[in-house]
Amino acid sequence: MTHTELSRTLAPTERTRLRRMKEKASFERSDLEAILDAGFVCHLGVMVDGAPMVVPTVYGRDERYLYVHGSVASRSLAADPDATICVTVTHIDGLVLARSVFEHGVNYRCAMIYGIPRRLTDDAEKTEGLRILTEHSTPGQWDYARRPSRKELAATTVLALPLDEASVKIRTGAPDDGDSPDAELGLWAGTLPLTSRWGAPTADPALPSGITAPAHVVARAGTRQG
Amino acid sequence: MTHTELSRTLAPTERTRLRRMKEKASFERSDLEAILDAGFVCHLGVMVDGAPMVVPTVYGRDERYLYVHGSVASRSLAADPDATICVTVTHIDGLVLARSVFEHGVNYRCAMIYGIPRRLTDDAEKTEGLRILTEHSTPGQWDYARRPSRKELAATTVLALPLDEASVKIRTGAPDDGDSPDAELGLWAGTLPLTSRWGAPTADPALPSGITAPAHVVARAGTRQG
Repeated sequence: MTHTELSRTLAPTERTRLRRMKEKASFERSDLEAILDAGFVCHLGVMVDGAPMVVPTVYGRDERYLYVHGSVASRSLAADPDATICVTVTHIDGLVLARSVFEHGVNYRCAMIYGIPRRLTDDAEKTEGLRILTEHSTPGQWDYARRPSRKELAATTVLALPLDEASVKIRTGAPDDGDSPDAELGLWAGTLPLTSRWGAPTADPALPSGITAPAHVVARAGTRQG
Repeated sequence: MTHTELSRTLAPTERTRLRRMKEKASFERSDLEAILDAGFVCHLGVMVDGAPMVVPTVYGRDERYLYVHGSVASRSLAADPDATICVTVTHIDGLVLARSVFEHGVNYRCAMIYGIPRRLTDDAEKTEGLRILTEHSTPGQWDYARRPSRKELAATTVLALPLDEASVKIRTGAPDDGDSPDAELGLWAGTLPLTSRWGAPTADPALPSGITAPAHVVARAGTRQG
């Protein structure tokens, strides 16, 4: 895939322009990339039989595209090839507990990407898409596990969604009613943070004794995710 | 709202019948309820201007409905009142690291609910919806914080989505290639668990000294989420 120079900012479109006030919208590509790199599961929105369908699925990315994959039998990836899809990646960083119920909210980082995905067709391109996906969720695993066979590639759909039209929203910090009349109520207000961490690897019970987890898996235990 | 007797099982429809093999589909209402009760943020899928839009938003539930809310200015809640929406709640429990890339996956619990939501109109009904939402994300907070005023209610849209048509999928446990020819490769396989926990509450910097966090907030620190 060849491309023109990639802009470091994301031009707002009618659907990515932020309408509400509380969150901060970002049109910096670096914020989009940071949100995508912090996660590995997105929510893919497609139209199926006239209704929206939202399915969680793993993803990966390179400079230009977000990749998702699935079975060729998957309904969510078999939609109209000219149809726009929406991929949303969300990290929940905590609850925002304000003095009033109205000002309650969530600290979060969210990227919504809109576009018409391209279905990868050639084996080399599909393999590269699967490499990006695998390395995104588990760095080091592509060189460790058995790679896809031609038969497995044929059973797999890989879609590449251009990282061109995106809405990035980030909310951080304290509640917003600290300078409102509600501050007089004498109620506690603040945030309750939420953190996700990897645990220790658990071996498949079918694994023969003496096979230890590889370093790239062991090293992840205890680290933060998101 | 009055109702007929609620079935403890969810009758599969064309779009909720599980097509793929790896995950376990559940049509038990108790599994749906457990997934909804373990989380507080869903991904709401709606059609906006002919394309799917997937937005994270907090939710609550009672026996019959899932509730979401937002600003009356929100595009995602202002869709066609007769249009079907999809609400997805996902918990990611870990990575499934198989011997082959093809068998890699995710342990997860996911509920997808389809339906045409009802827009709550009367103040008492909206207040009750907001109580359910507030208590779902932060039990104890409705009786602590200042409740919505009439003006705030007027600025808020609350939707009630019937818990009638749902697809519940759960994957747990080890990779699936332990009895395949790949088991001969001598590669490690297993799972890398992921856990989300609440941290200690952080006071709003605007909070006067001497106001301590309420017990229902403090008690949550260190507990598991999801």
